[in-house]
Order: sequence, then C-alpha cells, then structure tokens
Amino acid sequence: MRAEIIAVGTELLLGQIANTNAQYLSQKLAEIGVGVYFHTVVGDNAERLASVIRQAAARSDLIVFTGGLGPTQDDLTKETVAEHLGVGLTTDQAAMERIEAFFRQRGITMTENNRKQALVLAGSRVFPNDHGMAPGMAAQRDGRTYVLLPGPPSELYPMVEKYVMPYLIGLKPEQQVFHSRVLRFYGIGESALEERLLDLIERQDNPTIAPYAKEFEVTLRITARAANVDDAERLIQPVEREIRERLGEYIYATGETSLHEVLVDELKRRGATIACAESCTGGTAASLITSVPGSSAVMRGGVVCYTNEAKRQLLNVPEEVLAGEGAISETTARLLAENVRTTLGADVGISVTGVAGPDSSEGKPVGLVYVGVAVEGLPTLVKELRLAGRRQAIVGRAAKFALFYALQRLKER
Amino acid sequence: MRAEIIAVGTELLLGQIANTNAQYLSQKLAEIGVGVYFHTVVGDNAERLASVIRQAAARSDLIVFTGGLGPTQDDLTKETVAEHLGVGLTTDQAAMERIEAFFRQRGITMTENNRKQALVLAGSRVFPNDHGMAPGMAAQRDGRTYVLLPGPPSELYPMVEKYVMPYLIGLKPEQQVFHSRVLRFYGIGESALEERLLDLIERQDNPTIAPYAKEFEVTLRITARAANVDDAERLIQPVEREIRERLGEYIYATGETSLHEVLVDELKRRGATIACAESCTGGTAASLITSVPGSSAVMRGGVVCYTNEAKRQLLNVPEEVLAGEGAISETTARLLAENVRTTLGADVGISVTGVAGPDSSEGKPVGLVYVGVAVEGLPTLVKELRLAGRRQAIVGRAAKFALFYALQRLKER
Repeated sequence: MRAEIIAVGTELLLGQIANTNAQYLSQKLAEIGVGVYFHTVVGDNAERLASVIRQAAARSDLIVFTGGLGPTQDDLTKETVAEHLGVGLTTDQAAMERIEAFFRQRGITMTENNRKQALVLAGSRVFPNDHGMAPGMAAQRDGRTYVLLPGPPSELYPMVEKYVMPYLIGLKPEQQVFHSRVLRFYGIGESALEERLLDLIERQDNPTIAPYAKEFEVTLRITARAANVDDAERLIQPVEREIRERLGEYIYATGETSLHEVLVDELKRRGATIACAESCTGGTAASLITSVPGSSAVMRGGVVCYTNEAKRQLLNVPEEVLAGEGAISETTARLLAENVRTTLGADVGISVTGVAGPDSSEGKPVGLVYVGVAVEGLPTLVKELRLAGRRQAIVGRAAKFALFYALQRLKER
Repeated sequence: MRAEIIAVGTELLLGQIANTNAQYLSQKLAEIGVGVYFHTVVGDNAERLASVIRQAAARSDLIVFTGGLGPTQDDLTKETVAEHLGVGLTTDQAAMERIEAFFRQRGITMTENNRKQALVLAGSRVFPNDHGMAPGMAAQRDGRTYVLLPGPPSELYPMVEKYVMPYLIGLKPEQQVFHSRVLRFYGIGESALEERLLDLIERQDNPTIAPYAKEFEVTLRITARAANVDDAERLIQPVEREIRERLGEYIYATGETSLHEVLVDELKRRGATIACAESCTGGTAASLITSVPGSSAVMRGGVVCYTNEAKRQLLNVPEEVLAGEGAISETTARLLAENVRTTLGADVGISVTGVAGPDSSEGKPVGLVYVGVAVEGLPTLVKELRLAGRRQAIVGRAAKFALFYALQRLKER
C-alpha cells in the first residue's frame, strides 16, 4: 500500500505553524508497515486542493487528509473530496447530536455554519470525534482509500489511536509488519559512519539501513519487513551484529532515547549519583541530566565554575595550577571532576573546561576542551578533545562528550 | 511570483522529524511578499523527486528545495534537478577548499563521498555555506527559479539570511523594499497578545503585522512595503507606537535577539556581573547566559543546587528554612539569590526554585516556581509563578523568567 498525506491549511503555507500532523501520521503508518511516499501541504483553496487530490489518486492507494473540516468558509476538504469522488454529502446523525449538545451545554446558540461539520461523504465509514465537533471519515473508490481527519492535534491523535488505526489495519491485504532497530552513536560523524558501513548500505534490501544526523549525534535505523515481529527480528539481528562488530565502541544505546536519559538510567540501575563542574559548557550538561524526569534520584547538583575565581573558591583548584597549566588543562579538568564529586558527595564527578570560542583563551585554540570523569574507586579519566563548529556546537558537543564518557566509565566499574 | 517548497528526505516521510524548514522558508518568503502555494515532502528517491519537480515546474515560478545536498548515497537533490534542467554539475572551488580545510583542521582524512558536496549546477549562482560543507545554489530556466538549500537548520538559516534573501529580493520585478521591525515580548501568551491587538491585526494592510510564538516567547513582526527604507520606517512607526502604548511592559527588545543576549548586553553596559543559583532549572539559565559570546565579562558562575544538601552546603540556606517553609518557597528563593551573589562576588544574583514535574514536591503543585533577583543596593525581588506545560516547558519558562526579571530589575537600578 502506497500512502500519502495531504494537510490542508493556509496557516501552514504562511509558516505560522509546522506540519506536525504529517509527522505524527507518518509515524503511525510506519508502525503498521504502510509506506508514506509524499507529504503535501495545500491552502484553503478548492481548485488547488482538487489538483492535489487528482495527483494523489494517480500515484497512491491511501490518501490521508488532515484539516479543513471545520465550520468556516475556509473549510472545504469534504466538499472538494466529494466532488472528486462524485458523491454527495449527508448528515451524520450522531455527529449532529454531538454538535447540538455542545452548544446546548454552554448555553450558546449554534451558528448555522456549525451544521456543516456534521456532513460526511455519502456511504463513508465515520470516525467519531471524541474531543471536538467534526467527525473523521473514510471512503473507497477505484481501489483507493480516502481518509479525512481533523486538523487540531488534540482531536486528531485520539481519533487515530481509537478508530483509524484499527480501520487501516483491516485494509491491509497481506499480513505484514515493519519492525525497526535504532542504534544510537556518539563520537563518530555521519560520513565516517557511512564509509565504515558502505558495503552494507549499498547492498541493503530487507532490512533497510538508514543513517541520519541530528544535534551532534548519529543514529542508524535498521528496518525489516516480514510476516511477524519474530521473523523481522531474525532479519535484523545479523545486520546489527555486523554493525556492532565494526562500530560497537560508538554505540551508546538502542531505540528512541538520548545520552542523558541513558546516563540517568545507568546511574539509577547502579544506585549511583553524579555531580557536574562546568566551565565553558556553562550548565548545559547539568541541564541535560536534570531534564530527565526522576533525575533527582541521581543528580547531586553542579557548579558552573565559569571564572578562575569560581574554580578556586567553590572547587579548590589551586592558584598555582590556574596560573601555571591554566584553567584549560588536563590537571584542572581532573581536579574539577574530583572536587565536585567529593564536595557534593556524589559517586561520579564530571568536568568540562575548554575554549568554546569565538575567541581563543590562555593562548589555546577554539575547540580545545578537556573532559574529566572521576569515579570512586577508579583513576580519574581525562579526555582531550578538539571540537569543530561555532560556540554553541562546541558547547553542545562537549557537554554530550562528558555524558558519553561518564556512561562508558560507569560501565567499566 | 508563485512559490513552492520541496523538502527532500525519507526521514521526514518516516515521521522521524517535522518539516520545520518549510515553515521557516514560508515565513521568510512571506516577509518579502512571495506567496507560497504548496509544500511537498518527497523521499530520497530520484524517480519520485523527478516527478515532483516536473509538477512544480508546471505550476510554480519559484521552487525552493531543502535537503539532499549531503555526502551520502541518499543525497540526490542536485543530480535530479540537474537532470530535469538538462545541465551538468561542476565543482565549486571555494566550497571544495572549505571542505578540505574542515578535514585538515580536525586532522581527519576526508572521505571521497565528501567531494560531491562541492558540486553545483553548472552556471548556477552559488550561496556559500558558512556553517557546513554543502553550498546552496540557484538556477533559472524558462522563467522558473530553482533554489537548492541544505537541510540542517543551523546551515540553512544563516545561508538564507545572508545570501538567499537578497538574491530573492533581487528577482522581484518591482523596485521595492521590505523593511521590518520585530518586537520581542516576554510574559504574555500569543492569544492574549492577539486579542489586545485584534483591531490592528484585522485591518492590517501595509504594514503587515505577524505574531509568532516560539520557545515560550512571542514576537511580532511589523513589515512595511515601500520604495525605500525611510518610507517603510514612516509606515512602521505609528503602528509600533500604538503597540508599545498597549503592551510596552512586555516588550524586552527589538530585532533578532534573545532574552539572554539582551541581559548580557545590559550587564556589560553597566559594568555589572551576575551569578545564578538554580534548582529545578538545573543549569538552563546559566547555560543561556554563557551561550552569549563575550559573556565571560559578566558571568561570575553558578550553582546547580539541585538537592537540599547542595542548597545548604554550597549556598548556606539554613536547615530550618528547608525543613520549614521548604526548598520551594519565597524565603529560599531570596536566600539563594542573595547568597550566590555574595559567594561569587557578583552585582546581581538570580535564583530559581520550583516544581518542574511531573511529580509534585513538598506537597506543592507542578508549575509553582519562585524566581529571586538580588541586586546590590535594592531589596531582593522574589516572584511567584504558576507555570503550565510539561517538565521541559516549565524549566524553559522559569529560566527565561529569571533572565526577564533580572533585566527589568537592572533597568530600575
């Protein structure tokens, strides 16, 4: 089944909002193995919408619309699809009663234009709207399925979960699932990763292998198509094994998660706590850790030791070190990690000190960053990094490296 | 001019990310009066991309592509557009040098696939990529303009601001400038702002008035169309005056800036320094301040006093207060602000303590947050906030309120 999603709404074309409905619907369709091949956004204009519908009917089996089911003059999805299909619109009684009750309960007079929200394509399957007024609907014609859904996410999501997904699963002729494994990498760039896996990527068929880069991390999605999840797993596993053999040192997790969530989980699993001493990252690492719900079980706190005085005063880095090797040095990183650990009574202390830019500091180049990880019972680890990019890229990368090395070190304990 | 935007990338069709580039480009085009009539998303597939290009050429004058300019096998926008236009690809020397330098500086070997990023449509206008490797480009054929731009927002936005907007303005036949004023608001929501300005928004013509909500802030862009900048200013000023009269207390700046940049500027202007004590915001306020280049002139540092022990140990909040009124209280916020100020020797101390959620704390509700601002020579200000949203929304809002109140308080000194 080849699907496409058509979002109707001029506000999308003005850039007032992003098309998150298409993203949501794509995820849901992918879960049941329906391939989405196009997204389109078109404005509240009957002629342009009609042309988009014609184009969709020529290339897709499943056409999902979102938006344009409301009461105003601009809402014309139903009318335009009806015209394309050559069917009429009829009033859905349940929807009509629901709309009337809504106004009655609020003691407001229902305006006439609200009646049109109860209209549905004649002969269509109706999906109730449990969080709004306009019902959704699905109609079939010439082997194609047209599904019309509301625009507001608060109405769309529940309708999809409760009514539309079962309907779509019922449509599929073959019994098939799509099942994925997502591998999350840190410390390797997208092109280097692709190069190390080039032969696998070039000969991919089932499963497919898709890399993508976002926020300084690279993830790889391995997707298999099979009769059931177990068979899909059997296809995925040898590919995953091969990738882990080649690049395992860079893999920090599987699935939809993040470095900070994985670190907090690992700390929780071990009953361990962490504290952060951050100079150039200014609180970024601490804010990532504390963004995880439940992190209060593992986070002792942190110090943003942005100046030499703060490093000395709050974390006892001796003046001789600051004046000698400098704030940006292996020794300072080590002392910061160890001292924030003991001062805040944590099992793990991490530190970041470096040159975020745009200016160099202490005569040292932009991108030079030291990350320290102090773990009770192990020698303190210090890594020297040379990071590229603008200030915020260096800060973001450095903070994530601190989390990544802390995670690695924890696993070695 | 009728424009459409084509985003290329299978990850969009899988729902892995939302098409924020189309939203951004639509806003930018609207600013210069170019109507966008369609958005399309198509996958990394030459055949389907070619069909989308043909369709776009049949209905639009300006076709803007984003994505698919990278080094991997999946990146094929240039090749497919070139084939459609019947032109070849040539190496852009400046782009090639930039790519080589990137790898040289990091001491990594450049992989062969990176070379293709320097290819551009023969005869096209090239837009340098100041934040990445793949340049953008624009080509014209049969009265249509094809603009190819990178996918990553951090590369796209600066390229658009610096190179693409002037290029597009130059394409428009009439002699005209578009000149904007952006007003930045904090502490008021988008619908409340719209309601207070409804009459202005409804009767807008020239200038236009466009509200945008993003990351807990609301901005208003007033755009005038005129023969020159002075005439445009004359159209904007009365509108700006009216808005300031109605909502001036919420306006913290004009132009493209941010709360943290404005705060750092104000501190610099006054030769003042700041320190942060953050509990529930976990380092977010400090990381915002330190993200500003040159903030080391004003930032003394901070303490992420996430636990009661940290509040007591590092910032001397008495046990009686923590056990009595609690960590989330006006008194604690006041003491944290004052003590971080004196401990780190700053002129201004800010504090944030509250319930970020999802669980309540000390029997207090999610969203209750106290923000403290201690300024030498003034009584310490403490504000009680009731914030809505999920954990990260509460954290983000609270951190920004701390910056906002610090800014307001500084101006009162």
